[in-house]
Amino acid sequence: MLSSGLLPVDPNPVDGVEPLNKCLAAVDLGGTKIYTALADSRGKLLAETRVPTNPGEGMEAVIRRIAGTVEEVYNSGGAGRDICCLGMGVPGPVDPETGVLYQAPNLGWRDVHLKKILQKRFAVPVLVDNDANLAALGEHTFGAGAGERNMVYVTVSTGIGGGLILDGKIYHGASGGAGEVGHMVVEPMGPLCGCGKRGCLEALASGTAMAARAREMAGAGAGRAILAEAGGRIEDIDAGAVAAAAGRGDEEALEILWGAGRALGMGLANVVNLLNPGLVVLGGGAMNAGKPLWETMEEELRSRAMPGALERVKVVPAALGKRSGLLGAVALAMGGRPPGDFPQ
Amino acid sequence: MLSSGLLPVDPNPVDGVEPLNKCLAAVDLGGTKIYTALADSRGKLLAETRVPTNPGEGMEAVIRRIAGTVEEVYNSGGAGRDICCLGMGVPGPVDPETGVLYQAPNLGWRDVHLKKILQKRFAVPVLVDNDANLAALGEHTFGAGAGERNMVYVTVSTGIGGGLILDGKIYHGASGGAGEVGHMVVEPMGPLCGCGKRGCLEALASGTAMAARAREMAGAGAGRAILAEAGGRIEDIDAGAVAAAAGRGDEEALEILWGAGRALGMGLANVVNLLNPGLVVLGGGAMNAGKPLWETMEEELRSRAMPGALERVKVVPAALGKRSGLLGAVALAMGGRPPGDFPQ
Repeated sequence: MLSSGLLPVDPNPVDGVEPLNKCLAAVDLGGTKIYTALADSRGKLLAETRVPTNPGEGMEAVIRRIAGTVEEVYNSGGAGRDICCLGMGVPGPVDPETGVLYQAPNLGWRDVHLKKILQKRFAVPVLVDNDANLAALGEHTFGAGAGERNMVYVTVSTGIGGGLILDGKIYHGASGGAGEVGHMVVEPMGPLCGCGKRGCLEALASGTAMAARAREMAGAGAGRAILAEAGGRIEDIDAGAVAAAAGRGDEEALEILWGAGRALGMGLANVVNLLNPGLVVLGGGAMNAGKPLWETMEEELRSRAMPGALERVKVVPAALGKRSGLLGAVALAMGGRPPGDFPQ
Repeated sequence: MLSSGLLPVDPNPVDGVEPLNKCLAAVDLGGTKIYTALADSRGKLLAETRVPTNPGEGMEAVIRRIAGTVEEVYNSGGAGRDICCLGMGVPGPVDPETGVLYQAPNLGWRDVHLKKILQKRFAVPVLVDNDANLAALGEHTFGAGAGERNMVYVTVSTGIGGGLILDGKIYHGASGGAGEVGHMVVEPMGPLCGCGKRGCLEALASGTAMAARAREMAGAGAGRAILAEAGGRIEDIDAGAVAAAAGRGDEEALEILWGAGRALGMGLANVVNLLNPGLVVLGGGAMNAGKPLWETMEEELRSRAMPGALERVKVVPAALGKRSGLLGAVALAMGGRPPGDFPQ
């Protein structure tokens, strides 16, 4: 359950003066895991830990667990320092000023004054933001997006989420809901999405969507290579099984990846045409499906995006893996300052 | 050709101290017209004029004409004042820092250092931006968008363009190309667009697209009511003829408006899902097509947008008509300050 101690990643290789008596706490609160870290004032991780969220036990229990993880990382890496800020990512739209979490279906929470609750608990300033926004900020500060003023982050996993860094800052929109790339419609008459609408990008290109198509195939007696990768059990087919079969050259699996890649390319083209970003960073497990997905995505993007916008944009894989949200919470606690620029 | 003198619109009814010795020049440079105004330092128009652009005569001639219009409005309304800034809108993507116009197909210009050229000519600071961005800024400063931090402006006319006001400022993107709402794909296998791609919003919902559909109908012997509105000449059918026939209850014309409204609603839903704006302002001649277009647009938007984003957004008609771009150039020259807040 714990993984504190020495860490493989140093998100901040910059050498400089760092106030040794200060540190930051960062929490990435998800529906299944609480991922917590302690960092120095320039963003270098000092300790981290991960515990299950167990939202079924109720909000008070979850907040107690969060407090426990913060104490744990502090005890593990905070010797002689004071925590000067807590940054936290949550799975739902947030008002970044008030720190109110409007809703988090995975937690079963609505209109929770997280900032107030946590500030009372920890007696330090708390900053709260949406998890996808923080994953974007993490990549922007420490990862693939460093130095780019206008960056779109998209995560393709069980769902498809996104975060926007515009003119160098997280863009929240009018009610904290900006960046819903996964629910842009790319095929008006396409498959039903979990959100109740039709043809959303998420319904066409998420890991869940790829697995669903493969299960449909297997249920109809096709998709044998994919089924074999899932140990012969239809219910065990996931995007990984599709990617594995595609890796062996299976045409049916390739078709699924190509379809997802096309949808993704079209969705990205719309984002690129609207926002003219300098960089698109793609993360999430489903992006590991390999070349067939990436290549079709890029081909579709090239054919659908405006030449001027296309010329300027780079599309790159995320660099921080599962740590993007956590490091985004670190960056949030750093107050948006670049690594090495944190005030004493 | 001239229309200087007293003006029907006062974009700034606020009363306050205004430095009487200062004024601003604003130019809305289009492919067919140069629209120029003189404004006081709070944005109130003092004089305006309009002349044809005649881009065929070459860039030097066009710039001479611009200079002529500025002199004209100054002579007409600038008595006793100095022009302290010139704001200018141009029909193409611009680097807002350097004032370089990357390209303007309607003018046949590429990579023109407009800011430098005009500053030399007028010996005052010059600010240049894209015309759709300035129409957005105009509506945001003086029109339907006043007070809203996150606003999307869409103009539906012969083409479909857009401008984004995000976190209170024009959002330009990485190379001045942000806001291309018209080239977001809403129907992957839809009709060919002027840009060479398929199913762009512009190819489905612009005035040109509506007219094209109606001409197609008329060419096939249908669409009689629309044809009658165009005086019986297929080549004279425009979006106005479609709207007029629809206004008389003609089913075929209504179908065209409904189709355009659906496409527009879907495009806007994608924008709303991605940007979570507080306000969408719709301008351009084609938006005068009336209720059938608006209602279908709103219905489609409601069915496609995420509930949280939908709850927060208002969709309203533009308030400044053909003056939106010109007043945006005034607002640009005011340096983004609200009316009444301009320094001496």
